[in-house]
Amino acid sequence: MALLIQKFGGSSVANLERLQAVARIIINTKEQGHQVVIVVSAMYGETDQLLQLSQRLNPKASKRDYDVLLASGEQKSSALLAMALQGMGHDAVSLLGWQLKVLTNDSHSKARIQQIDCDLLNQYLLAGTIPIVAGFQGVSNRGEITTLGRGGSDTSAVAIAAAMRADECLIYTDVDGVYTSDPRVVPKARRISQLTYEAMLEMASLGAKVLQIRAVEFASKYAVPIRVLSSYSKGEGTLITEEQSVEQPLVSGVAFDRHQARITITGIPVRYLSVSTILQALSDANIHVDMIIQNASQVDTVIDFSFTVQSDDYLEAKAIANHLQQKLSASAVIASDKVAKLSLIGVGLRNHANVGAMMFSALESENIPVFMISTSEIKISALIDEACLEQGARVLHSKFGLDLEPNQAINII
Amino acid sequence: MALLIQKFGGSSVANLERLQAVARIIINTKEQGHQVVIVVSAMYGETDQLLQLSQRLNPKASKRDYDVLLASGEQKSSALLAMALQGMGHDAVSLLGWQLKVLTNDSHSKARIQQIDCDLLNQYLLAGTIPIVAGFQGVSNRGEITTLGRGGSDTSAVAIAAAMRADECLIYTDVDGVYTSDPRVVPKARRISQLTYEAMLEMASLGAKVLQIRAVEFASKYAVPIRVLSSYSKGEGTLITEEQSVEQPLVSGVAFDRHQARITITGIPVRYLSVSTILQALSDANIHVDMIIQNASQVDTVIDFSFTVQSDDYLEAKAIANHLQQKLSASAVIASDKVAKLSLIGVGLRNHANVGAMMFSALESENIPVFMISTSEIKISALIDEACLEQGARVLHSKFGLDLEPNQAINII
Repeated sequence: MALLIQKFGGSSVANLERLQAVARIIINTKEQGHQVVIVVSAMYGETDQLLQLSQRLNPKASKRDYDVLLASGEQKSSALLAMALQGMGHDAVSLLGWQLKVLTNDSHSKARIQQIDCDLLNQYLLAGTIPIVAGFQGVSNRGEITTLGRGGSDTSAVAIAAAMRADECLIYTDVDGVYTSDPRVVPKARRISQLTYEAMLEMASLGAKVLQIRAVEFASKYAVPIRVLSSYSKGEGTLITEEQSVEQPLVSGVAFDRHQARITITGIPVRYLSVSTILQALSDANIHVDMIIQNASQVDTVIDFSFTVQSDDYLEAKAIANHLQQKLSASAVIASDKVAKLSLIGVGLRNHANVGAMMFSALESENIPVFMISTSEIKISALIDEACLEQGARVLHSKFGLDLEPNQAINII
Repeated sequence: MALLIQKFGGSSVANLERLQAVARIIINTKEQGHQVVIVVSAMYGETDQLLQLSQRLNPKASKRDYDVLLASGEQKSSALLAMALQGMGHDAVSLLGWQLKVLTNDSHSKARIQQIDCDLLNQYLLAGTIPIVAGFQGVSNRGEITTLGRGGSDTSAVAIAAAMRADECLIYTDVDGVYTSDPRVVPKARRISQLTYEAMLEMASLGAKVLQIRAVEFASKYAVPIRVLSSYSKGEGTLITEEQSVEQPLVSGVAFDRHQARITITGIPVRYLSVSTILQALSDANIHVDMIIQNASQVDTVIDFSFTVQSDDYLEAKAIANHLQQKLSASAVIASDKVAKLSLIGVGLRNHANVGAMMFSALESENIPVFMISTSEIKISALIDEACLEQGARVLHSKFGLDLEPNQAINII
């Protein structure tokens, strides 16, 4: 008998039929002899509708009342799911953040969990009652409702799993696991059966939106095994743990992000260059900069400075760059939002210099020019022409043996 | 400077425009130098929608989770109203039942308020912040969300007014006060400027649905002055207090209820008659009996037994009567749902015997037959043919001087 936390997202509880399907999944798990604690998001569309109401009424409303408003969505879905389970003959009880004492800090709308009281959950488990926790919400030590930010229900589930020392935290979504790449782009993409937290973090940050980044960080910190699986179909899903699977190849996936834009300020006289001035100007506008390249050598008197931003911020970032061009006496601003970031993900990539060589030779062989490169411990990213993205993703997926089943994988190193 | 509790119903906060109109009413009151505490219902239609969801999912769901579900409606509207006020430059804060510590008993879905902690409200008032209380909800001493039953927001408002010793509890609705009769039926019906709790209770129980009966009882118990007024237009509304207004005439209104049905079991042999058997059979079916008439004299050997029920219960009550007819060896069952109850309301009516005489002579003069009569301290009701209802209401309204302004009222006694 294991203690399992099962978390269901908004699309899994979108309507009465889905709520009943989810109830059956829960009952199935319980009837296999496991103890279960459920965490649930608001019904699909509910949070957006509440956000819209508050935006139209007062875009600058207090975050405190914004949290009260938004938390009503999970209150509704948790009560309804408890009712569905009761209707199928099982004791179930909805539990709100303040009832469970999910203690957070005071940062309304993006609060951080500090502590979870497990007493109430243990009491219900002992009594054979299924606790249905409203995700995404907590309570501050002032007794105010707080919310954890978009996708916070994943974090709620992982935090409860950590506090309860659960055997596994199951995150149910509308896909059946984490894939080696996006199947819509790379038809040969396969489900990954096991993955490390680090690799999952990179996959997530690069657009594989199955899990919230904060939830993975939390899970990593407390060594909570997460399993991503589908509430629509049966299957093992993808297990995310500390340990590297014996079958896990060096390269675990090909991720990409189309929502990229690149801005280059060219011909900045070296004596005027101030990287901090540039980054501060962008930061003041709340624009997050991703890749940064500055190709200065000691003999240059002028240099080019390039950076990438999310395409939502493109126009504003371009305007700031134009302003900086004058301030820094630079020659010009060259900008484009027709670029995309293509990345190889794999734990320990940096220790294997030939992976980079293989990656860029593969792109060159397809005549795909690379504008910018960035690397980390476990990823290598290339900024390329958006039009070349699909072709690039497919060629990397093949080149690194991801088209094949793991046990057939070629030894690339 | 007065301390005022202002309660806004569902239609008053039905959409963003109405929420803003309500915010302006609140600000107006505050700018006149008053302290205000606001109580708000769920947005119009919200509670019905939640009820429908729970009904379709599980009609027998636990009342505990039903309360969690329903309470989300007022949570939403209170947060939105706080946001609207903030948008107009006023500090406001939403407060839920558990935050305010509106302590109730454990009777989920129809809980009774036991105590309200005023500390938090006083703190906010002192700081110049407008508290927006989510009506209809409380918390049990087990820390569970409870709700007060349909229309419970009126009760919340009156209870807060009592606990805070407020000067007045203003109930905003979509009508501008309590009327001497229904203006759709009696075109000369006038708004009543002042009324006692007792008279209001009778008006409410007879179909004048501006106020919840429980809220009036509560107000009466704690001597909280209530004012019923419109959130759509300006005006003094109707003040409901302990004291009888000097201008209040003996008869304060003509009320009626069309949803009546009459059932008579005729020719019950006296030796078989058992009133308790009849009433128990109806009570077992959860049918509430209103008027009861049993015209037995000592010389009769058979008697007729008549009673009225709400028309919703008509068919079921008729079936029960048919069953009883056999059991009691009675002659027949005569039943009709084409009847209506017409009532005169006025404090102290019973002490003025001539009111009854005037009432029935007025009905007789219009050839309106009366089937049943019941009286209380402050009302005289007649069951009549539904088709005669409007004519009867108008003739009584004229006869008792209600067509005239109070200061012109004729002295009828």
